[in-house]
Amino acid sequence: MFLMQILTDTILNQTIRVRPAESHKGTYGRVCLVGGNDHYGGAIIMATEASVYSGAGLNTALTDPINFTSLHARLPEAMVADFSNQADLTSLVTAANTIVIGPGLGTTDQSRQVLDAVFKLVTPAQTLIIDGSAIDLVAQNQLTLPVAHLVFTPHQMEWQRLSGIKIADQTDDANRVIRDQLNGTVVLKAHRTKIYTASEIYLNSVGTPAQATGGMGDTLAGMVGGFTAQFADQDQAVLAAVYAHSRIADELAEQQYVVLPTQIMHELPRFMKRHQALE
Amino acid sequence: MFLMQILTDTILNQTIRVRPAESHKGTYGRVCLVGGNDHYGGAIIMATEASVYSGAGLNTALTDPINFTSLHARLPEAMVADFSNQADLTSLVTAANTIVIGPGLGTTDQSRQVLDAVFKLVTPAQTLIIDGSAIDLVAQNQLTLPVAHLVFTPHQMEWQRLSGIKIADQTDDANRVIRDQLNGTVVLKAHRTKIYTASEIYLNSVGTPAQATGGMGDTLAGMVGGFTAQFADQDQAVLAAVYAHSRIADELAEQQYVVLPTQIMHELPRFMKRHQALE
Amino acid sequence: MFLMQILTDTILNQTIRVRPAESHKGTYGRVCLVGGNDHYGGAIIMATEASVYSGAGLNTALTDPINFTSLHARLPEAMVADFSNQADLTSLVTAANTIVIGPGLGTTDQSRQVLDAVFKLVTPAQTLIIDGSAIDLVAQNQLTLPVAHLVFTPHQMEWQRLSGIKIADQTDDANRVIRDQLNGTVVLKAHRTKIYTASEIYLNSVGTPAQATGGMGDTLAGMVGGFTAQFADQDQAVLAAVYAHSRIADELAEQQYVVLPTQIMHELPRFMKRHQALE
Amino acid sequence: MFLMQILTDTILNQTIRVRPAESHKGTYGRVCLVGGNDHYGGAIIMATEASVYSGAGLNTALTDPINFTSLHARLPEAMVADFSNQADLTSLVTAANTIVIGPGLGTTDQSRQVLDAVFKLVTPAQTLIIDGSAIDLVAQNQLTLPVAHLVFTPHQMEWQRLSGIKIADQTDDANRVIRDQLNGTVVLKAHRTKIYTASEIYLNSVGTPAQATGGMGDTLAGMVGGFTAQFADQDQAVLAAVYAHSRIADELAEQQYVVLPTQIMHELPRFMKRHQALE
Repeated sequence: MFLMQILTDTILNQTIRVRPAESHKGTYGRVCLVGGNDHYGGAIIMATEASVYSGAGLNTALTDPINFTSLHARLPEAMVADFSNQADLTSLVTAANTIVIGPGLGTTDQSRQVLDAVFKLVTPAQTLIIDGSAIDLVAQNQLTLPVAHLVFTPHQMEWQRLSGIKIADQTDDANRVIRDQLNGTVVLKAHRTKIYTASEIYLNSVGTPAQATGGMGDTLAGMVGGFTAQFADQDQAVLAAVYAHSRIADELAEQQYVVLPTQIMHELPRFMKRHQALE
Repeated sequence: MFLMQILTDTILNQTIRVRPAESHKGTYGRVCLVGGNDHYGGAIIMATEASVYSGAGLNTALTDPINFTSLHARLPEAMVADFSNQADLTSLVTAANTIVIGPGLGTTDQSRQVLDAVFKLVTPAQTLIIDGSAIDLVAQNQLTLPVAHLVFTPHQMEWQRLSGIKIADQTDDANRVIRDQLNGTVVLKAHRTKIYTASEIYLNSVGTPAQATGGMGDTLAGMVGGFTAQFADQDQAVLAAVYAHSRIADELAEQQYVVLPTQIMHELPRFMKRHQALE
Repeated sequence: MFLMQILTDTILNQTIRVRPAESHKGTYGRVCLVGGNDHYGGAIIMATEASVYSGAGLNTALTDPINFTSLHARLPEAMVADFSNQADLTSLVTAANTIVIGPGLGTTDQSRQVLDAVFKLVTPAQTLIIDGSAIDLVAQNQLTLPVAHLVFTPHQMEWQRLSGIKIADQTDDANRVIRDQLNGTVVLKAHRTKIYTASEIYLNSVGTPAQATGGMGDTLAGMVGGFTAQFADQDQAVLAAVYAHSRIADELAEQQYVVLPTQIMHELPRFMKRHQALE
Repeated sequence: MFLMQILTDTILNQTIRVRPAESHKGTYGRVCLVGGNDHYGGAIIMATEASVYSGAGLNTALTDPINFTSLHARLPEAMVADFSNQADLTSLVTAANTIVIGPGLGTTDQSRQVLDAVFKLVTPAQTLIIDGSAIDLVAQNQLTLPVAHLVFTPHQMEWQRLSGIKIADQTDDANRVIRDQLNGTVVLKAHRTKIYTASEIYLNSVGTPAQATGGMGDTLAGMVGGFTAQFADQDQAVLAAVYAHSRIADELAEQQYVVLPTQIMHELPRFMKRHQALE
């Protein structure tokens, strides 16, 4: 039997390390974020922006070229590449510590080709976050998953499609059976998000309905990317990202009726400073 | 005989609900905003941005592709689609709770085709806000209106063209006759805007000449979209949007000679928090 | 003999009117800003942005289409049109109260065609601000000027080319002779800018070397556009724009080593509020 | 034997001059920034933005046209030109006081052609900052360097490639031998950056691991460009830019876990004001 653990500020102190003085951008990881077709460019922009504001060392968006200009107008700190260019995709995914795939990727044939290419390249030492339409593509096509540190970030309907468990039947026991088959961490997004790791279940008891607006999931995926690239313990990195996302939203919601995803990410540098380990 | 009702802060408390804890972005509606040709892209950007900052759950701009990049550079939270792509237009309009048509749409043949396509798709359960050049297209071509929760947002000259009533003759009695024929709520924008619902006339007695600048109407249309998508009572949603738009402007105008439309929308999350229902 | 008048805050109170309650965007003028080729798009963006922040009612940039997206990403409040589209240029220039021509226009054949087209359309009731490369085009080609309320905004070298007076010889007497031939107000930009109207000479004794950076002139041209479109007395409008531009820079320079043009324009709404007439 | 000098706030007071009242944008130099291919557009945007915020008088980005719109959306104060247009490149490089080459330039054949063209044009009176991929191109192809005020800004691995000295062997003595062969100032970026001028070695003892994120080097290159264009003593200008970059980061890092490059540059006008010479 699993005892549910409730996330508190402690997960932040345990995860967010005071940066060592002798370090460089390579110390803080390379993140490759894959998604953003011609309709959903905003999703990959938000995921990439969230990873940059999380502090990951080097960030590249692999996306439809239609999104290059809007991304750079907001965020010159990130690099861009065409996700349909096989050579660029290969070198960038290979060089990454963490790959985030899914935000705004879509479910077209092109989306599928990009997903297949990434799945073939990923190696066991890498962390792969599978989000949004990438989850749907896996579910629809019953794709074989690569061996890697896998993290899935479905909302309840995406989890139904991926796991085959109807929303009403998504009990911890049922969810854990599928989680073990998937052999990855599952962030099941809901009013109160749960995180299923290999050995534990965690409950995120913070968060606000002011977050219920488009782009929140893309932002979380980017934060999970930025945190896993920087912090060694991959489970803690996921937990800290989920918790920080909601805690920042709670703070903003004290003054705001709705909290926009881009507002959350812009608070990250100050929030993380306040909650870094005191060593 | 109708008694004119004067809008006060009460309309905000009556309309803006404290969000239920158990909710998700779908709870707060899908808004589809249609407009923005190659000259007036700013209009659809402002309408969409206003809907997002109002708190609507999911927002898509159906526009000329020339506007995709500028919109995403400002607002990655919104999705985009080409208004001349019939398949995209059909699926997006069909899925929406609220459709806003007109900001920067223009009056070309293409504008007309887009309008016709939207009018064919709209169903009685949806709310359709008809603004700007969409009003002119209806007037010029004496178009048959779809059956839906209709909201018209003309200024006085657009109302003259739509109603056939000259500005000098736009009395409440005359306006109401046409309003009943149109079978929709009319927001008649003027120094003191009046709102004609099926049963009442409301006067917006707030607002400032600092608002007299391009883009104010587009912003209001987007806010009406965002409010009607979120709040159940459609008449109250329209009234609250009109009133909030002017009240925020009044606050900003205490320090500013001119108030830009984008400044108003960016205040919405804080303003709405202060004025939400106290339940 | 002319007595030199030194500009003070008084020119602001005399010019910036408390807005009448019963007014609409048309009350505050239509400004058409013409310029911005494929190298100098920033110039027309800054001029247009300055006019919008000055409070002009309706603002359109007539520019190379390459600049549409960057302009709208910053400023959805403005409209855009292709300056090489004769029909659009004709209707927009004809409808304007004030036309600003020159910021980033360049001196190519295309630039010349655009200038010629505007000069043909301008009518005596309109105000035409001739700035930057438009001044050079007039000087190089000895162009006949249209009959209108003309305002020239040369720096000293541009004035040398336009007037034929070498910088060292630019005395008030010499300048006034050419000013009378040109039959327009001359804003001669220098460390201490002078303004030559039909009957007076004014000295702008404020301003800071922190302003010595690219784009200041484009911003001033846009402000002159925005002020002349709103305020009836055209000489006072020019004087107030020149003075406000430097006074805001002085305020910002108390804390800044360099003052960027876009920072000046963003202060305009607050600055103008503080200095509006007390009637 | 060289005594290592430790940089302090004194270098700021010695370098950043109170601006003379009688001056214009030409007084503060022309900077031409060359780089930004279709992947790394953000790099040239950041370098250019850093030069503008440093106070350089006129700034032009010579880059791939794909980057024009994103640059102007952020920064209308800069001009743009296509780095593959030989006529534009020639006139702009020739007119510049300072040229920065390398940020996001890449190492393709096109990159090489651009670099060769710039090297051919540079004259002894100009300052040329060689950064990023320009360093790699010089190293790979053993290019002959032009005669000019040269500044190299390698990190340790780039210095290994340029100097042939392995990172472990990069002692002051070894570095100085190569520095003298290169006949330029070397800014060797590391946890504690060292600057090797013709006669001295300086240590930058400030800076924070919060800076360890993509774009920091591009930003520094742009600042070195902006400072050398404005301040007469070229060595002091380099030293002050390096020191200011880290000192601003230290201030921001008091509140932030990560400091983004664009946040550093936006602080420059206020920081430089506080540290200008007290004459």
